[in-house]
Amino acid sequence: METPLSPLDFARRARRLYPDLEALVDGDRRFTYAAFFDRCDRWSAALQALGLRQGDRVAYIAPNTNAQLESFYAVPQIGAVLVPINYRLTANDFAYLIQHSGARLVCADGEYLDSVDSIRSELGGVLHFVALDRSRSGWLDYEQLVAAAPPNYQQPTINENDLLTINYTSGTTSRPKGVMITHRNAYMNVVGTLIHFPMTSAERYLWTLPMFHANGWTFVWTVTAVGGTHVCLRRVDPSFAFRLIKEESISVLCAAPTVLICLANAPGNTRRNTRPGVRVLTAGAPPAAATIARIEGELGWEITHIYGLTETSPFISICEPRPHHQNLSVQDRAVFKARQGVELVTSGELRVIDTDGNEVPHDGTTVGEIVARGNVVMQGYFNDPQATAEALRDGWMHTGDAAVIHPDGYVEIRDRLKDVIISGGENVSSVEVEGILFTHPAVQEVAVVGVPHAKWGEAPHAFIVPVNGMIIDEAELKEFARSKMAHFKVPAAFTFVPALPKTATGKVQKYVLRHGGANIARQ
Amino acid sequence: METPLSPLDFARRARRLYPDLEALVDGDRRFTYAAFFDRCDRWSAALQALGLRQGDRVAYIAPNTNAQLESFYAVPQIGAVLVPINYRLTANDFAYLIQHSGARLVCADGEYLDSVDSIRSELGGVLHFVALDRSRSGWLDYEQLVAAAPPNYQQPTINENDLLTINYTSGTTSRPKGVMITHRNAYMNVVGTLIHFPMTSAERYLWTLPMFHANGWTFVWTVTAVGGTHVCLRRVDPSFAFRLIKEESISVLCAAPTVLICLANAPGNTRRNTRPGVRVLTAGAPPAAATIARIEGELGWEITHIYGLTETSPFISICEPRPHHQNLSVQDRAVFKARQGVELVTSGELRVIDTDGNEVPHDGTTVGEIVARGNVVMQGYFNDPQATAEALRDGWMHTGDAAVIHPDGYVEIRDRLKDVIISGGENVSSVEVEGILFTHPAVQEVAVVGVPHAKWGEAPHAFIVPVNGMIIDEAELKEFARSKMAHFKVPAAFTFVPALPKTATGKVQKYVLRHGGANIARQ
Repeated sequence: METPLSPLDFARRARRLYPDLEALVDGDRRFTYAAFFDRCDRWSAALQALGLRQGDRVAYIAPNTNAQLESFYAVPQIGAVLVPINYRLTANDFAYLIQHSGARLVCADGEYLDSVDSIRSELGGVLHFVALDRSRSGWLDYEQLVAAAPPNYQQPTINENDLLTINYTSGTTSRPKGVMITHRNAYMNVVGTLIHFPMTSAERYLWTLPMFHANGWTFVWTVTAVGGTHVCLRRVDPSFAFRLIKEESISVLCAAPTVLICLANAPGNTRRNTRPGVRVLTAGAPPAAATIARIEGELGWEITHIYGLTETSPFISICEPRPHHQNLSVQDRAVFKARQGVELVTSGELRVIDTDGNEVPHDGTTVGEIVARGNVVMQGYFNDPQATAEALRDGWMHTGDAAVIHPDGYVEIRDRLKDVIISGGENVSSVEVEGILFTHPAVQEVAVVGVPHAKWGEAPHAFIVPVNGMIIDEAELKEFARSKMAHFKVPAAFTFVPALPKTATGKVQKYVLRHGGANIARQ
Repeated sequence: METPLSPLDFARRARRLYPDLEALVDGDRRFTYAAFFDRCDRWSAALQALGLRQGDRVAYIAPNTNAQLESFYAVPQIGAVLVPINYRLTANDFAYLIQHSGARLVCADGEYLDSVDSIRSELGGVLHFVALDRSRSGWLDYEQLVAAAPPNYQQPTINENDLLTINYTSGTTSRPKGVMITHRNAYMNVVGTLIHFPMTSAERYLWTLPMFHANGWTFVWTVTAVGGTHVCLRRVDPSFAFRLIKEESISVLCAAPTVLICLANAPGNTRRNTRPGVRVLTAGAPPAAATIARIEGELGWEITHIYGLTETSPFISICEPRPHHQNLSVQDRAVFKARQGVELVTSGELRVIDTDGNEVPHDGTTVGEIVARGNVVMQGYFNDPQATAEALRDGWMHTGDAAVIHPDGYVEIRDRLKDVIISGGENVSSVEVEGILFTHPAVQEVAVVGVPHAKWGEAPHAFIVPVNGMIIDEAELKEFARSKMAHFKVPAAFTFVPALPKTATGKVQKYVLRHGGANIARQ
């Protein structure tokens, strides 16, 4: 007997089994699972009353709040498609994503109402605008709508290959691409996470990772599947995070590298005032040995390194511990924990291939591209058949990550093939940043690469050839950049060079810039 | 991207990640995963050379040996369907199951060759007979075939809803029914098991449960999915089992109630010579408080109670611990652990319904029938549309188990609606036993019910009305039964009564016999 693989089935089970357990803490608001789902159901009914139908897209611009979490149930259970937007983007980005996704409804947290209002004229396709946490003229009031709606809605027939969310991610081109995640994709990622990272109803999960980010690595559903408690956090302030960890008895959290570094480097008296035994799932860049030593040795937490892309729901590998690793020294274990690891039991097949499509030898030195195929791989990019065909070539998702395979079968990333920089867990398209900098009148040529950064893991670094040897003021160029792009995309450093290193055919040799950046800067 | 949910995907992953880990121990034979899968592949090639094609059925009559485990990979990977037969049945039963399944090939362990030879004339549809552990005239030799075959075979396209196995089970009628398990069914059961019962590559699993039994509760694939080691055991001899547990560093095992009781009641010096920390999954009947106390308190093992049917792949509920259970006394925890529990994260929906199909109140007293729907529910009974329609009514699998739901949502079985007796983990059809006893010339009326039994959990008890008040010799009747049915089906007790309790419409009131058996016996 086949019933759809959907995160909504986890919700069905949690409603039945965990009605009295605490579902969510958001500041001084606390909801049991019964109360939480009652709110979701009322919001579903309200959405239908507002004219939303199966297949319609609903965009959210919000930090980690109860309203944002509710969207991951209320929107899919009427068969609509959730578009959780990165709130760190600019108003122009918001306009593009709302238009591109064809969203019929836009929900925004109070901090983003001005930004959305500034682009309203471009959003003719949107039926309604909903303010999530306040009343405001020109906006519907979320809490009023939820309070006024009945708790019953019409659930359409939902198939497991129906669209669940569209998650926009920056790629190699300047325009973000909409990753289409199906109900089956997300379900399989939750299942894989729970197999490798077991959780129970005693779990209390701290939302340090943005929910918009690959659906919070699917923890928006994973925590609910086991009846754990979601503890919301608007933004990662270390002292507040450490306080919540203690006061709310946090047992597990997910951390992009920047959050991990931020927690590891918090002042000593902040760190000391915490609770041991927290399990931390990290992805986006391998945790540095010093960070692991601080987190595991000093705080008494446990780090698990996992790897994936928004395009893979997101997990395709985990640094699965083996029995003999227990006997390793802290140093050797850190070296091991820096690896991206092996495919999950349920994520599908992972390979590292050369340009002919053959797998590289498992020698720890030969570099190839990581490719994956399986049930967590996205359906494609929304309304972008060309980008889809490029990414899903020959039946494999091409990650753009260059890696080696060690003799024990563990994958380790060595470089990036695509021009994407991952800064603080955010994808930054170097091509996009280059395009904007190029509009400055004094810039003749520009190349942007990612370089290691103490706080963000990696940060954009711009190499610029000025027009006719002009002198460009770095501060002025930075301000120019800040006015045109989301702040996390603005290069952390600018280096002015007489020429860019190029191949015989004229292509910029970005690997030279990445690896010899310091030398070039001194020229 | 959709790839088939199949246990073969766990095999693919294990081949890649765990080639050097120990896959299997069977007496003095030990195979790494590389060697184990090499044998499976050669046997697949041999099967194809013998003329086996996609969809063909292959029957096995074998205890827990390396050859039996190999069948769970070699047969499905050529798209054929495995029929693992209960080796405790009679030759006549074997004939029926081989004919009914339409098996084209029969593989049997040495102990069962005589039995199969005795029914050869009835097995015209079988192309080949293969002896698994010895050479014998009239039989192909498994080890010779494996050794001679190349390691490559042709893998056809396999869909997740294709048949994987047919597992025969006794039902309410006298003829066994062939439960059709798909690749997706088994995959989902493995995934659910691993979520609730986490395992790693360090696991060493002891095969106390027969592999034919609902595919060893899918542990034939679950252990492989995590790269653990299968340790074979032909039959459960307590002192040998305890020795293996120690010598092979066993960490986990599955136990039908009879095995659990057998281990708990082994002589003290046998029990003391064992290893603590073993995790035990038990199903089939709730473990008694005394058994739990012995196993957990004395041996230092940990019992998890799980519930299901062959028809549900098999797990549909687990007695999931809740945080507050930790504070319970051993007695109170035993009461709790006797419950069948709650549905697994991935098994689907579980309800207890009254005769109108409405769920009973969660009051711990109102009895209804357990029904289930979801991805672990079988496709149906092989070539038996009528039995399928009866079992899968209104979109739900009807288990025939009568249960209550406690206020915390936990299900607890109170009685059985169907006339099936579960003795030592085996299904015994009371109708079948009644039919055979009825052929004895001195028997006028007969009713067989299950009654509690110290060793087997439950055992058949026959209530007999003799012809014209004749006196029947119990020993003679027992011998008569033993000559006509598998030994585990023979009633453990016979009670001769002047009349059977009946309803107004003349139906035998079996619940009166079950619950008032002692009183009737004294009349």
